[in-house]
Amino acid sequence: MKFISSNQAPAPGGHYSQAVEAGGLVFVSGMLPAGNNQPPLTFQAQVHSVLDHCSAVLAEAGCGLQDVVQSTVYLAGVEHWPAFNQLYAERFGSHRPARAVVPVPALHHGFLVEIQLVAERPSQS
Amino acid sequence: MKFISSNQAPAPGGHYSQAVEAGGLVFVSGMLPAGNNQPPLTFQAQVHSVLDHCSAVLAEAGCGLQDVVQSTVYLAGVEHWPAFNQLYAERFGSHRPARAVVPVPALHHGFLVEIQLVAERPSQS
Amino acid sequence: MKFISSNQAPAPGGHYSQAVEAGGLVFVSGMLPAGNNQPPLTFQAQVHSVLDHCSAVLAEAGCGLQDVVQSTVYLAGVEHWPAFNQLYAERFGSHRPARAVVPVPALHHGFLVEIQLVAERPSQS
Repeated sequence: MKFISSNQAPAPGGHYSQAVEAGGLVFVSGMLPAGNNQPPLTFQAQVHSVLDHCSAVLAEAGCGLQDVVQSTVYLAGVEHWPAFNQLYAERFGSHRPARAVVPVPALHHGFLVEIQLVAERPSQS
Repeated sequence: MKFISSNQAPAPGGHYSQAVEAGGLVFVSGMLPAGNNQPPLTFQAQVHSVLDHCSAVLAEAGCGLQDVVQSTVYLAGVEHWPAFNQLYAERFGSHRPARAVVPVPALHHGFLVEIQLVAERPSQS
Repeated sequence: MKFISSNQAPAPGGHYSQAVEAGGLVFVSGMLPAGNNQPPLTFQAQVHSVLDHCSAVLAEAGCGLQDVVQSTVYLAGVEHWPAFNQLYAERFGSHRPARAVVPVPALHHGFLVEIQLVAERPSQS
């Protein structure tokens, strides 16, 4: 088991690692946008911030968004689905991991989006 | 990594694959019932539709409900738990994967149930 | 695939196994506190009860909290985050798995916390 820490994503505010690698898979913690959301970030800025954090943590684990196999997206308000999907598609490009979008009540600090990932560590050759 | 696509389940309405196989595991996206829910499907019809989609996607990956190891069930309204559990038990038969039932606010299109799965790909011999 | 059953955790109230082992990973079902919550347990008692169940199920699978790689925590009310984090940290000690805290509406029986885990089975030597 290997613990992943990137200084390009917010330091954990609680008892967790940004990601853990085990058995060839990288489990990324639920990532939130940066800051305390005061003043509130736009939805678009929140999505980009979350995906920036995901990318940074994955990079530290030796992989990237193109290695993601499962993505679980917690959205505060299912009405954000279309905007979310478009921004997410732009960032993932041609790569389409399995995904579940899960509506939730308000997230921590009033954020609107949180993403939890499982990626496959590319084999070392 | 292998991307799974079944024409027996709705084509992805967003940026995801129906399932992705990696490292011997099959990650199935959050499946919803078919259609736009107009007029609204009964809860029973929704559960059967979701499990039909799950089965179809798993079949395309070379496995079935009997290979599921983890099931995460998002229910809009925890009061549906008993009805859900009964229908789910009928479909899974003697196979009892690990499961979490997660209450959520309204799902996309007002659906009442979404299921996300991880299955183990049977070894090829 | 191996099904895990511990008599130190509540018998499944629905169609699931307490945990399933596959491919070196142990998938633990969403664990709730014990009892029917009448009278309601304190939040602290609920967290300890859930983690007791998690520990018992993991032990039956030959591992423990120190082998957890991914933890998904469903909290009814994000205002419980600070209290949850402190109790969780006390129980996990120096081990910090990847974690997502997911706010949800009311859980079954009015419980306030549910935890779903993935652990890595220590290799047998």
